[in-house]
Amino acid sequence: MGAVEYFDVSARDGLQNDSVLLSTAQKLELIHLAIAAKCRRIEVTSFVHPKRVPQMADAEDLIAQLPDRDDLTFIGLVMNDRGLDRALATKIDEIGCVTVASDTFAQKNQGQTSQESVDVAAQLIARAKREGRSANVTISAAFGCPFEGEVAVERVVEMARQLADAEPREIAIADTIGVGDPAKTLALVEGVRAVTGDLPLRAHFHNTRNTAIANAYIAASAGVTTLDGSMGGIGGCPFAPNAPGTVPSEDLVYMLERAGIDTGIDLDGLLEGAAWLSEALGKSLPGMVSRAGPFPKSEQNTEQNIDSNPKELETT
Amino acid sequence: MGAVEYFDVSARDGLQNDSVLLSTAQKLELIHLAIAAKCRRIEVTSFVHPKRVPQMADAEDLIAQLPDRDDLTFIGLVMNDRGLDRALATKIDEIGCVTVASDTFAQKNQGQTSQESVDVAAQLIARAKREGRSANVTISAAFGCPFEGEVAVERVVEMARQLADAEPREIAIADTIGVGDPAKTLALVEGVRAVTGDLPLRAHFHNTRNTAIANAYIAASAGVTTLDGSMGGIGGCPFAPNAPGTVPSEDLVYMLERAGIDTGIDLDGLLEGAAWLSEALGKSLPGMVSRAGPFPKSEQNTEQNIDSNPKELETT
Repeated sequence: MGAVEYFDVSARDGLQNDSVLLSTAQKLELIHLAIAAKCRRIEVTSFVHPKRVPQMADAEDLIAQLPDRDDLTFIGLVMNDRGLDRALATKIDEIGCVTVASDTFAQKNQGQTSQESVDVAAQLIARAKREGRSANVTISAAFGCPFEGEVAVERVVEMARQLADAEPREIAIADTIGVGDPAKTLALVEGVRAVTGDLPLRAHFHNTRNTAIANAYIAASAGVTTLDGSMGGIGGCPFAPNAPGTVPSEDLVYMLERAGIDTGIDLDGLLEGAAWLSEALGKSLPGMVSRAGPFPKSEQNTEQNIDSNPKELETT
Repeated sequence: MGAVEYFDVSARDGLQNDSVLLSTAQKLELIHLAIAAKCRRIEVTSFVHPKRVPQMADAEDLIAQLPDRDDLTFIGLVMNDRGLDRALATKIDEIGCVTVASDTFAQKNQGQTSQESVDVAAQLIARAKREGRSANVTISAAFGCPFEGEVAVERVVEMARQLADAEPREIAIADTIGVGDPAKTLALVEGVRAVTGDLPLRAHFHNTRNTAIANAYIAASAGVTTLDGSMGGIGGCPFAPNAPGTVPSEDLVYMLERAGIDTGIDLDGLLEGAAWLSEALGKSLPGMVSRAGPFPKSEQNTEQNIDSNPKELETT
């Protein structure tokens, strides 16, 4: 069924709300694990106020130590002109802008109305491009809002139409609070693609309600070019503290590859990254393939493994 | 997109491998919670040797205390003639037979080759029907075998063709070890339906590798009539002790209803059942909607909830 690009957000969306602060050296180790797993686009940090998000306080220091390789694209999140000033003073390849599909969430997340978030993002994209950087933009809360509930597909499509005019590298739709379902995913992907033409479309799913893998499959089937994930599934949701957040990269890649959708990613490498993160953060992570292992290999000499006294496990 | 029937396996597949033995009274409470959530087909026990599966030792006692209601169907699993003898001595409505798609797993699970499991199931179905009981049959390990790895779609389709001749109430395909993906699900559902005609098709997914909800959506889209689940997602996998097993009913129903597929099930009732089970078994369960809550309602007076000092959460 073709191919889809994997976009790793472990170091940014994954870490940003974690109570364990990783050192810059640890973050570099994490990013090198993603590179070893053949990730080629990696969201590494964000340029926000260090008092708001202490985990991202070392943005400039981290970026200065990233490898210089033409086949890698490193992305830093930018919320406003001050953030973009900081980004442009580094060698970051691409900036990520954030818009929000509902007014209440936009106000709480970044002190803007939904429309203001679109206008600001369009300006940031234009300025970044003038300065020779690539820029992408995410429509957050596209599948539902923690305060307003339903978000109309039409609103997200209208935002995408306006954002496409700013000519970002790609537009992403994000299920920020993990409420999405496959039918909504299909409606959003088809709606957005109808107004954005050939512009690449990325999707960012949270597995908060167990639907992220289903949504990712439908999104890939409907023509999304890129799917986000984080190793181990790190990155919770501030609106559901006990539930999982970003879809685990290794579960996503397991599903895609088994379903015949090529990612170019090395699953074993992601599993190593997830194990490293579990150790570094001192907790078990939501990723499931890490615990269950990949698809079983055929055992040699299976005859020898047959129990002569069958267990009648009655497992179905 | 129509409707799908939910089939609750909490009391059987869910409990059978749990180290906490529930009393018969507790199991009845669990079954009544399922009924309160509007479940209408409920797998309640299995007629296997009590030394093999101690949790199921009270099969006869449990069934004797089940409510007599025409709108409810209670199912008990049967592996052989001795089990069917026991089932026929009770008022159980329907028996469930188990076949296995790979020889190694069939040998380990029930001391048969795969073909022998089909032949025995066909005989059990015929005998149950002669005795006036309904009978369904499951093809286990249809998506992969823990010992042999890949299982050919053609093998599962051939088993379904033979089993359809025995005229069970329905055939189920089971991803016993949770390795399935949406493309394999589609291939199996389409392949089986092509040889079983109008015979209802059920699917039983394990979320061991995070793919169960995706597989369930594809199965429902492709014409499966019934989907299994367990409240809270109880029921692990003996081949992956640290990973989840049966798909959580509440996550399944959340996704289906949000995607416009009617189940007739009361989600709040399932959440009550999951909470009860978590308490009874003394552990947190894999179900995610239990932890995150259902789709958020629109808050009244959202203006009042807007923080005057926005957090710049930068959540995407």
